Amino acid sequence: MRTIDWVDGAIELVDQTLLPHRLEQRRVTDLPDLISDIQRLAVRGAPALGVAGAMGVALIAANVAAGGTSADGSAAVALDRDEVVRQAHLLREARPTAVNLSWGVDRALTRLDEGAAAILEEALAIRDEDIAACISMGLRGADLTRELTGKDPVRVMTICNTGGLATVERGTALGVIQTLLEQGSLAEAFPLETRPLLQGARLTAWELQRMGAPFRLLIDSAGPFLLSRGIADAVFIGADRIAANGDSANKIGSFSLALAAQHAGVPFIVVAPESTVDMKTASGADIEIEDRGVDEVAGFGGTRTAPEGIGAVNPAFDVTPHELITAIVTERRIIRPGSGETLATVPLEPLRS
Amino acid sequence: MRTIDWVDGAIELVDQTLLPHRLEQRRVTDLPDLISDIQRLAVRGAPALGVAGAMGVALIAANVAAGGTSADGSAAVALDRDEVVRQAHLLREARPTAVNLSWGVDRALTRLDEGAAAILEEALAIRDEDIAACISMGLRGADLTRELTGKDPVRVMTICNTGGLATVERGTALGVIQTLLEQGSLAEAFPLETRPLLQGARLTAWELQRMGAPFRLLIDSAGPFLLSRGIADAVFIGADRIAANGDSANKIGSFSLALAAQHAGVPFIVVAPESTVDMKTASGADIEIEDRGVDEVAGFGGTRTAPEGIGAVNPAFDVTPHELITAIVTERRIIRPGSGETLATVPLEPLRS
Repeated sequence: MRTIDWVDGAIELVDQTLLPHRLEQRRVTDLPDLISDIQRLAVRGAPALGVAGAMGVALIAANVAAGGTSADGSAAVALDRDEVVRQAHLLREARPTAVNLSWGVDRALTRLDEGAAAILEEALAIRDEDIAACISMGLRGADLTRELTGKDPVRVMTICNTGGLATVERGTALGVIQTLLEQGSLAEAFPLETRPLLQGARLTAWELQRMGAPFRLLIDSAGPFLLSRGIADAVFIGADRIAANGDSANKIGSFSLALAAQHAGVPFIVVAPESTVDMKTASGADIEIEDRGVDEVAGFGGTRTAPEGIGAVNPAFDVTPHELITAIVTERRIIRPGSGETLATVPLEPLRS
Repeated sequence: MRTIDWVDGAIELVDQTLLPHRLEQRRVTDLPDLISDIQRLAVRGAPALGVAGAMGVALIAANVAAGGTSADGSAAVALDRDEVVRQAHLLREARPTAVNLSWGVDRALTRLDEGAAAILEEALAIRDEDIAACISMGLRGADLTRELTGKDPVRVMTICNTGGLATVERGTALGVIQTLLEQGSLAEAFPLETRPLLQGARLTAWELQRMGAPFRLLIDSAGPFLLSRGIADAVFIGADRIAANGDSANKIGSFSLALAAQHAGVPFIVVAPESTVDMKTASGADIEIEDRGVDEVAGFGGTRTAPEGIGAVNPAFDVTPHELITAIVTERRIIRPGSGETLATVPLEPLRS
């Protein structure tokens, strides 16, 4: 199953707002529906949003081309470029802070001069690159885990959803866990529920159950303590952005796991594609952290739990300093900030498959 | 307002299951109602349960005495001791793992030979000792905070509910925060929501709002990260049990805060009455940790968030090793495990008031 794909002239995507209770694939045939799906988080996850952006431009181009028939009914010879660019801008604004969405839109637009078919070709290439990158990250991560822990099978902890639902297939950190499972090397996984939006409890637990992995769910604050009691051999997380010095912005709760992993002597591994590396950001201190407001904190799954009229601090993500990161795994290389390696010096290698 | 008290021949207690949405005091006149209130957590918190146990025996004795009239209608001369002991055992079994409940029951029963009035006197003495202990802890804790941080006013972080709702009045860790507020020394408090049962979001936020303290609520996993960014000057927690070497069992999430406090160079302070010190338990390794099962983790308040059919690890509390604890504050002394002081050697001092 693919989280997002292009099928018979339209986008098909898994509506993640219905999970874990119902698996439903939506067929999206026009731009307003796609914008709505992005805004209500029916599709989420940085790599998946990149694909959504590119396929969205393909959808726009196809619809503009179909509308651009001449008065006598014959197909128009040229795409209305200005109209495609105008609609692409609306798509980009669906979630202005999602860097990958803009990236996908812009990359698809580089083929604008070649017409609708070329734009679709570019969108499908992004999809295929994402699939290949996740396979490569999984293989590199699984080998590294056995090497660093000296164990096989291994018990691993993770946070948020970094699985197939955040990408096209397989995922980043959860993709490594799936690879370990396929290789017979997964003893047990421990996903954290991931307050406030519970992506771990809702999405990662669903993915692990679906792939047949042995796992038990934890509340977020149990993770660090259970690491100190030896429950897991390694911790894997994804990344929203990796600064030039290796500091990594991740789902809130990652920092706490990194501290505890160091205290427990357990490897802490960031798994993310090369596109997440941002050499223009020097360190984590330069990453601005969005505060998502009080409502997510004051309630749980639609139930108001806290008193009315209170305030909250609700950072959407945190920053793990590179000295707490044992290794960064991308599709092209492994960097070990804990051993002094840097993103600037470790060379890229071929994809693994 | 007292969380639990004896008024006009019966127990009056705040029904904590209705908070933060409604404040309601229940009048409890017989044993079955009290047992039900304890089991459904209408009354909770170790010190409050000790008072509930002792007042429960007073209630039993009063009812047995009232029932023990002779055939001609005159009052019976002696209390039916066996009947009181039998019913007291039922009360003790309402929450078998709550050590303070048994302790309160047993202490009240030491006055059994002296009759119902003496039992009530003992229960009221426990109530008054709890009030006095909380005042003393608050004063000691507030002074220590200014001393350790060198700041006034201070910003403090806490977890779970350790306030008046867990005791008779004022509380332990939250009692220190209230004392700081009363002394003009509280800049801001940061309570953690405290999954899975959300005592922080439901009860501590309610108490802070009621006392007029400036505060903002956090999800649990934001606490450690925000400490690393300097949001608070000190962390206060309560304790379920303190082992002879200073290792402290506390609400799950405390360990993670202790690690982060050490990393941030911020004092981590345990506030609990002397009755919490258990010199028969050598260290935290000897404390058995109850697992509360999957349901609390898989949802909240009737809303299921995780898929059906999954497992969980759900430790009810965690253990913070003494080397991560800057100070333990009781009503009678301050012990600094981080500076090599031990519970066996620091002498008791008079209560402060």
